[in-house]
Amino acid sequence: MYASANRPHTPADASRRLLGAPASRIDTPALVIDLDAMERNIAAMSAFARLHGMRLRPHAKSHKSEAIARLQLAAGAVGVCVQKTAEAEALAAAGVHDIYISNQVIDPAKLARVAQLAQRVRLGIAVDSTVGIDRLAAALHGTSGSVDVLVEIDVGQGRCGVPPEAAGLLARHVVDRGLRFAGLQAYHGGAQHLRSVTERQDAIGGAISGVAVAKDMLAMQGLHCPLVTGGGTGTFALEAASDVYDELQCGSYIFMDRDYAQNNAIHGAPQFEHALFVKSSVVSRGVSHAVLDAGHKSHAIDSGMPGVWQRDLVVSNGGDEHAIVRAGGSDALPELGETVWLVPGHCDPTVNLHDNFIGVRGGLDDGVVEAVWPVDARGCIS
Amino acid sequence: MYASANRPHTPADASRRLLGAPASRIDTPALVIDLDAMERNIAAMSAFARLHGMRLRPHAKSHKSEAIARLQLAAGAVGVCVQKTAEAEALAAAGVHDIYISNQVIDPAKLARVAQLAQRVRLGIAVDSTVGIDRLAAALHGTSGSVDVLVEIDVGQGRCGVPPEAAGLLARHVVDRGLRFAGLQAYHGGAQHLRSVTERQDAIGGAISGVAVAKDMLAMQGLHCPLVTGGGTGTFALEAASDVYDELQCGSYIFMDRDYAQNNAIHGAPQFEHALFVKSSVVSRGVSHAVLDAGHKSHAIDSGMPGVWQRDLVVSNGGDEHAIVRAGGSDALPELGETVWLVPGHCDPTVNLHDNFIGVRGGLDDGVVEAVWPVDARGCIS
Repeated sequence: MYASANRPHTPADASRRLLGAPASRIDTPALVIDLDAMERNIAAMSAFARLHGMRLRPHAKSHKSEAIARLQLAAGAVGVCVQKTAEAEALAAAGVHDIYISNQVIDPAKLARVAQLAQRVRLGIAVDSTVGIDRLAAALHGTSGSVDVLVEIDVGQGRCGVPPEAAGLLARHVVDRGLRFAGLQAYHGGAQHLRSVTERQDAIGGAISGVAVAKDMLAMQGLHCPLVTGGGTGTFALEAASDVYDELQCGSYIFMDRDYAQNNAIHGAPQFEHALFVKSSVVSRGVSHAVLDAGHKSHAIDSGMPGVWQRDLVVSNGGDEHAIVRAGGSDALPELGETVWLVPGHCDPTVNLHDNFIGVRGGLDDGVVEAVWPVDARGCIS
Repeated sequence: MYASANRPHTPADASRRLLGAPASRIDTPALVIDLDAMERNIAAMSAFARLHGMRLRPHAKSHKSEAIARLQLAAGAVGVCVQKTAEAEALAAAGVHDIYISNQVIDPAKLARVAQLAQRVRLGIAVDSTVGIDRLAAALHGTSGSVDVLVEIDVGQGRCGVPPEAAGLLARHVVDRGLRFAGLQAYHGGAQHLRSVTERQDAIGGAISGVAVAKDMLAMQGLHCPLVTGGGTGTFALEAASDVYDELQCGSYIFMDRDYAQNNAIHGAPQFEHALFVKSSVVSRGVSHAVLDAGHKSHAIDSGMPGVWQRDLVVSNGGDEHAIVRAGGSDALPELGETVWLVPGHCDPTVNLHDNFIGVRGGLDDGVVEAVWPVDARGCIS
């Protein structure tokens, strides 16, 4: 049998020594937060939710960080969402006390972990099958924990969730198994990145109709619906303007990636700033191209290449550890050793590639390192 | 100033308890090695290198693991390649003693780390600029360490490296700065995934010509070329058949991802087996689709979606934490809770998403967990 070994290397130690140092000292590639911009984003979303009487439960899958969750909670969030049991465990261990797993958990061994967690934090979970409900009830049986159970309906994404017409019977099954029916999970992931406002209005219009149908089905079962939760950074203003949603789950607004920034703005919705960057530098320089030390092990490319912050440069894929940069027209190609700030195409999977956030106050180039935060739930995929 | 915190969660602990357990107990999603297949791959490549009188220096960027590096060294590898200083540090800390950074390092602070490393292990590094050489010499000045310096030439990829015609002068600069000129880095990344053998022959034919030109340039400077290193899993048989390459850098052969498996086979080259899998399971089931608990935070999609192992099912992107599966024709859709084994599209960045490898002996479904190895250099991108 092969021996196992401990992870020998903790890059976090080196990063922590940066606290108080000029931002120019940050090694590349690194995941850097513009703290000023992130805090403005957090404040803007909290103000919007308050103004519209919506609960805000930000999705922690975006940041996987206890430190950032605390900032959101301090600004008025009621708790956080996660997608994975292991994410919930990591954030609970770090002191977050109100967590909703907005996803299905089916494996009995994993549901035993859910039941354990429920004894330590306020816990919610989504369900979309009688099998899932039965197994959840079995896992909780005989424990002191209880769980808020939300029935997930498919409001247009075609991924998880039952049709709205089936919500009543599934909620009835929740109650019949002695569990607490806590409402509807009604997130439309497919709508978030539709570029035009009209497309998103149409998609969320369909979601709202689906929720209304599901509520009718619940009423036919004599069940009250305590909460409807959903919405993302691309559409939250539409869910907030509806009569049926109570809670918003936006995650990406804190960082604002390149993909979301390409959406046309919805009237009345706050606009968010880019607050997450990959600091990179030029390690090789040709006549007509420069090569950065950041590839798709530094930034996720599922939603396209990263952009270059405030410079007219075009990035193409250079593989796992490199990006290739060419002049976009107005700007000169960067020189060997020069810093290039990348705006990730998609923030959530980019964060998941890094050990740490490095938080900068007072500007990316001239600021000071004020925070080094571990990505607590990085790699917590199970 | 924000407080920093320790990473509170080590999923490795839970995985280690799996040692000796049936493979069926592996939680999902998880990164699983078929140890029998991986060992056959390692043996086949080592035998090929021996037969053709080539040195084999496998690329550890694929596995980032001391345990797997040791298996390769035991099978005859002369050392390993890495792409990043932090990878070299992690593997050196874990006990690997001969490491080549097949990439440029430009930042003086990082070169100071290179110089430190050079005092503990046999270390090589690639250069493609006079600035890089000057800074490397400055970092090594006054230390007891020495480094094998390889001049990188661009043999067709258009990424890093100088034109072959410039190799002589750059090698002369290496020697003039008191450094040890150790040969040429001549890897053609762009050739590895060309599907037809003819395309790859053409590309590597160009690389071989480039190496020949560079060697002439070295000779004109009165410099001997001790070593030419390059080659990858898609082309190594072509470099081995040339008169100019001495060392192969293949990495992916140990795991064999879906992308490499789509290459047409080169006559005389060993064929490798799929040895790396993401174990996933169905968490939601519609009428015509099933949803897996593994998305692109579990498997990299830069080279396409994962395949499904030994089942006629088609995978589409379901986002960060989900994949959507539809019946391909001959097979039924998997049921709720059922295991689905995915073959990653690209092994290197997939490995980088996980904390651990779980090594199984005797088959994926019926075998026993024989190894739990940390991905030692996961996230070591700097």
